[in-house]
Amino acid sequence: MPKIDITAAPSAEGSDYPPPFEVAARGRVVRALGAAAGLNQLAVSHATIPPGGWSAQRHWHEGEDEFVVVLDGEGVLVDGDGRTAMRAGDCAAFRAGDRNGHHLVNDSDRPLVLLAFSIPEATPCHYPDIGLRWDAATDSFADEQFTDQR
Amino acid sequence: MPKIDITAAPSAEGSDYPPPFEVAARGRVVRALGAAAGLNQLAVSHATIPPGGWSAQRHWHEGEDEFVVVLDGEGVLVDGDGRTAMRAGDCAAFRAGDRNGHHLVNDSDRPLVLLAFSIPEATPCHYPDIGLRWDAATDSFADEQFTDQR
Repeated sequence: MPKIDITAAPSAEGSDYPPPFEVAARGRVVRALGAAAGLNQLAVSHATIPPGGWSAQRHWHEGEDEFVVVLDGEGVLVDGDGRTAMRAGDCAAFRAGDRNGHHLVNDSDRPLVLLAFSIPEATPCHYPDIGLRWDAATDSFADEQFTDQR
Repeated sequence: MPKIDITAAPSAEGSDYPPPFEVAARGRVVRALGAAAGLNQLAVSHATIPPGGWSAQRHWHEGEDEFVVVLDGEGVLVDGDGRTAMRAGDCAAFRAGDRNGHHLVNDSDRPLVLLAFSIPEATPCHYPDIGLRWDAATDSFADEQFTDQR
């Protein structure tokens, strides 16, 4: 059956950000729908973000395009250029290597539900607001200043 | 601005299916949002399917995973196993090389809006109900019986 039972897909709550940066993503529930459905070429994250929560720390990917669509609720896309309201059906795209970091925040009083798509992550992800980078090869965070900048 | 102005994205109405197979996709409006946003790694099709219309002829891809999410309206996912109702927020995934062809049909009285994702198409797409295959290299259709089967 190709239709996905979303509530039955494995879920992870919160984030792997080191303290104190995990607070903003607390309560976030992410389901890796692509993996749950046996897809190898697409990473598909179904995220439910509670009121007051963030989709992620603001970030950009060195080597992966990213596409986001809001399924339910209302969020605010925050990037280096400002704040943009996003509601159900709204889409946003982020090109690989574009250093204008982004995230979505939920300033509303009900859950924000979104899907995020990319090819499987194989390159570093940068978090400019908190001085960290995530390394795909080791699935770990490091201080940005201790690593080479590109 | 990462948020996509969907109505301003280039759109194509109908399909390239040879007659008489184009009829079912008549009135379908597709916007290639990934390309419109400058993405190279993800093909993102935003499709609006009128009442009575189909997303596509029933098909399967040799080499590309596919992921579909319904954004608005109601559709029916049809594959070799039967019919499954799909409404806003519902998702379905189709693995590369899975010969269980699929499409979505709109049996309702209002438009069906969906997004379909894959990596850029580089392999043949097969249409078992109409005996055709589409070749990515030449962007053309051929009778399935005149080509090698795999």
